[in-house]
Amino acid sequence: MTRQFVVVGHDAPTDAEFSLDDLPGAGRLDVLCRCVTAAFLLSHDIREDVRVTLVLADEYALTFEGGSLRRLNPDEHSTAALIRTALAKRTEAVGHMSVETSPGIAIDRRDFEQVLADVADDGTLIHLDADGQPAVEIDPPAKPVFLLSDHRDFTESERQTIDAVADERVSLGPRPLHGDQAITVAHNWLDTDGFLRW
Amino acid sequence: MTRQFVVVGHDAPTDAEFSLDDLPGAGRLDVLCRCVTAAFLLSHDIREDVRVTLVLADEYALTFEGGSLRRLNPDEHSTAALIRTALAKRTEAVGHMSVETSPGIAIDRRDFEQVLADVADDGTLIHLDADGQPAVEIDPPAKPVFLLSDHRDFTESERQTIDAVADERVSLGPRPLHGDQAITVAHNWLDTDGFLRW
Repeated sequence: MTRQFVVVGHDAPTDAEFSLDDLPGAGRLDVLCRCVTAAFLLSHDIREDVRVTLVLADEYALTFEGGSLRRLNPDEHSTAALIRTALAKRTEAVGHMSVETSPGIAIDRRDFEQVLADVADDGTLIHLDADGQPAVEIDPPAKPVFLLSDHRDFTESERQTIDAVADERVSLGPRPLHGDQAITVAHNWLDTDGFLRW
Repeated sequence: MTRQFVVVGHDAPTDAEFSLDDLPGAGRLDVLCRCVTAAFLLSHDIREDVRVTLVLADEYALTFEGGSLRRLNPDEHSTAALIRTALAKRTEAVGHMSVETSPGIAIDRRDFEQVLADVADDGTLIHLDADGQPAVEIDPPAKPVFLLSDHRDFTESERQTIDAVADERVSLGPRPLHGDQAITVAHNWLDTDGFLRW
């Protein structure tokens, strides 16, 4: 596992009672769907060396593993259907047990703090932040774990949690990007050895 | 107008008779929607200096102007609704007449060859192509016009049209990107003065 993304969905649904035809109305699930597809999909290919963890309303963690992920399509609607399937099986996730709800997707009961504690030793924790150090000034780490928020900023409490564990605070450009755009640029940064060569 | 994107939708609908709840089934309209939002949207902001032209099935051209664009949201569903509204008014576009169908969005009857002829003098025409010259080796031009295809490659005939007018063939990274991802990276290339500084 060489690239990880942890995305916090503050208003994300915690049950399956939402319509796939109104994803913005479902706690801005559209934002999270785009983050997932940006993290995994290439043109006619999938990035197998990626793990994405979505933190849903600080209650559930949804983990996507590139190596075993199946049926992930680029459109928001079908990605949201995979998430809804996972949420429909959420009651099977008891205690620390994780439940695989479709190939490569698992749900468990964890909040943001627990997720951060779990990834803390996986590699270099990078808080993606508009005010961070420009990525062009840094050599990309071998095993980055990027921390992102959804359409809302991290809360003060989340920032304190992040500051306690993050290794770096990095900016990917001078304009404020959406989460999925930041993921796309972060991949490009890594793919090009720090925007240098390929 | 400093940045333009021309995106060819080979299988795109040419009327409004499609469901917003199945965009992949509507000639992969989801692909074009993501290209539009990637071109214009920043986090809580819009790029006003951008124009996007979608070429729909070589029959209609749909033009989005950042300076006057309103009601563009990040989700695919609402972007597709704007496109459907434009297509519903397509019969008002007669001859070379363009019709504004909602603020900042206009439709007219043009094929790919005509669109290329119209943008040829607007700036530096850049064919985005996995086999092109790495962007890191080039200084970004002041007024780039990027040419992209949807989920399908450009046809042989389209390639010939492009080769006749394009100034450069540029690659944005070693991995093959989706159109919207390429647009996001192209913006970052320009925003950072060629991945150098900000």
